[in-house]
Amino acid sequence: MIRGNDPILLTPGPLTTSLRTKQAMLNDWGSWDAAFNSITASIRRDVVEIVNGGDDYTCVPLQGSGTFSVEAAIGTLVPRDGKVLVPKNGAYCARIVRICEYLNRAVVDLTVPEDQPTTGAIVEAALAADPSITHVAQVHCETGAGMLNDLAGVAQACRKHGKGLIVDAMSSFAALPIDVRTTPFEALVAASGKCLEGVPGMGVVIVKKSLLESRAGNAHSLAMDLHDQYVYMEKTTQWRYTPPTHVVAALRVAIDQFKEEGGQPARLARYSANCAALIDGMAKLGFRTFLAPAVQAPIIVTFHAPTDTAYSFKTFYEMTRDRGYILYPGKLTQVETFRVGCIGAIDANEMRNVVSAVEQTLKAMGIKQVGPGVQRKAA
Amino acid sequence: MIRGNDPILLTPGPLTTSLRTKQAMLNDWGSWDAAFNSITASIRRDVVEIVNGGDDYTCVPLQGSGTFSVEAAIGTLVPRDGKVLVPKNGAYCARIVRICEYLNRAVVDLTVPEDQPTTGAIVEAALAADPSITHVAQVHCETGAGMLNDLAGVAQACRKHGKGLIVDAMSSFAALPIDVRTTPFEALVAASGKCLEGVPGMGVVIVKKSLLESRAGNAHSLAMDLHDQYVYMEKTTQWRYTPPTHVVAALRVAIDQFKEEGGQPARLARYSANCAALIDGMAKLGFRTFLAPAVQAPIIVTFHAPTDTAYSFKTFYEMTRDRGYILYPGKLTQVETFRVGCIGAIDANEMRNVVSAVEQTLKAMGIKQVGPGVQRKAA
Repeated sequence: MIRGNDPILLTPGPLTTSLRTKQAMLNDWGSWDAAFNSITASIRRDVVEIVNGGDDYTCVPLQGSGTFSVEAAIGTLVPRDGKVLVPKNGAYCARIVRICEYLNRAVVDLTVPEDQPTTGAIVEAALAADPSITHVAQVHCETGAGMLNDLAGVAQACRKHGKGLIVDAMSSFAALPIDVRTTPFEALVAASGKCLEGVPGMGVVIVKKSLLESRAGNAHSLAMDLHDQYVYMEKTTQWRYTPPTHVVAALRVAIDQFKEEGGQPARLARYSANCAALIDGMAKLGFRTFLAPAVQAPIIVTFHAPTDTAYSFKTFYEMTRDRGYILYPGKLTQVETFRVGCIGAIDANEMRNVVSAVEQTLKAMGIKQVGPGVQRKAA
Repeated sequence: MIRGNDPILLTPGPLTTSLRTKQAMLNDWGSWDAAFNSITASIRRDVVEIVNGGDDYTCVPLQGSGTFSVEAAIGTLVPRDGKVLVPKNGAYCARIVRICEYLNRAVVDLTVPEDQPTTGAIVEAALAADPSITHVAQVHCETGAGMLNDLAGVAQACRKHGKGLIVDAMSSFAALPIDVRTTPFEALVAASGKCLEGVPGMGVVIVKKSLLESRAGNAHSLAMDLHDQYVYMEKTTQWRYTPPTHVVAALRVAIDQFKEEGGQPARLARYSANCAALIDGMAKLGFRTFLAPAVQAPIIVTFHAPTDTAYSFKTFYEMTRDRGYILYPGKLTQVETFRVGCIGAIDANEMRNVVSAVEQTLKAMGIKQVGPGVQRKAA
């Protein structure tokens, strides 16, 4: 895997991209020019194809971070008198609740324990209890802890009850399998800088065409109006407002590499191997994962912080960074943790190297107690 | 001036950037990492300094295109019961009217002829006529035609009447002089991919700190809540949501070059020379500018299209593109025009080359009649 010599980013995005992807940003593109607009069109087609969306679905790209696209999807698609169920087992679910509150959409904030997946049964019970719910907003992989929620089950519950499903698949799209024919949704949101391994700067919303076309005038914001963005793009092939041209060009080349690698199955296999190598290696150092293996997505892994009093995340982070690896802080409120991503243009060998870097950091920090009852051998 | 061999973009952004700026995108950055966040901090400081904002102003960067930042500024700063005067002499002013309508802010849509600048007197009369107006939203350089509006005059009118001023300085910031000490404003919006000569993907809002701090809970959108973005950034040094890391890194290097060149006065001098070389050369081919010289900003020039029946913009565009220059279509509804930008990492020599490319295109298209009564000499 070709890459530069920056520290490796073991975060849920931005992540380490290939040098080829970055080199695609060495050109300037005119946003009105046909050559650029054919790139946009090809990305839209390829993204829909990843979920087997066929002719019923379209892809609307949007400037900004993935969260912008999540807000745009909710604001454009959920009617103003709609009501959104948000099963919440982490920070990204909580963010959707906050979006609904800003947008004055009624919201059912359903807490699910952070170490347990949202399932079809949980959603079904909530839908049965409150028939006024019109939509479910579901985070696929909740990277707050690295939880894999049961998207297929949730989709079946929505289908059974006739509710709209909006999926935040930010950190799962292109890595975990999602097929709209078996996991029906109204819209699914992803971003350039996650498992497609592009650089950050734009989101993509895969959305049912007929539904989107019925949503003129529903959005709360001009910038976030996916209907307006879609209509303009269909008519002109251009983005409504200045696109992040270099980000778009990099995403095109990143998707080329995604296809060359073998698409979603191959990407999942690589990330799964990364995740296994990481968890194995860290276990040998005494680290325990926060989640049970069955619900651990191969995207990002939450580890309990060492129990040793010599541990501080800041020092641990900085010393591991000096060894070439950028870790990520934990996002849980109750337990001290840190996170290590498995995604990006990296392979299992890199994961073994990060374990080695962590081992050296532990030694340098004088940390002996990693988990409860686990004493590191003296070096 | 070092650049790659792409076609030169003679558009109001994205524009041609230096190779050095693009090469800054060959690194991946962690959005949580101190090294990256110090880049964000330094950009914020430098941007405030360009308008002499001192300690009273701060810069809040925002993901997305410049329009996103305009909407964010209006949505965050104008109270929900506020009323916005929009003097309108072009497409970008019209876009602000549309934003206000989406955001349910009362708006006074004041049409000014497209070939005439908005002045302090025009704004003063409108403010006197409707004391319920709370804010004026003023486009500095209206690139619909290339019009330089009288920002200083408008700012004085706002000061006199005690109204808030929000400036869309997208295409003027860093090129035309703006000093908040003499041209007071509540907020001024610019973007990475315009006269700072970075790549597109983020906006910046320069805003009065005390005012912004009073606007908690006012925004209509989580993504566009500048107050929330500001509070989080001040507290953590980080962006709230994934920043476009490569765009940010490129902007840092672009601002370095801006300073090395001599800052705003030097940039204005270069763009003015570009504009003069362009207008002179095009005049020799028979082209007339849409605007009078006194109100022509040295940012983008609107030319009347050739009157010859052999002219079509599409062919003219494509043939000039084949010669290495990307022009821009006109944006006026009443008159057939095209536009040529003067901004980006280009100099007057490049402008002479574009005139040469246009001359060759005219010849190839068999266009003899460029302006009324002006017959090109046979080649």
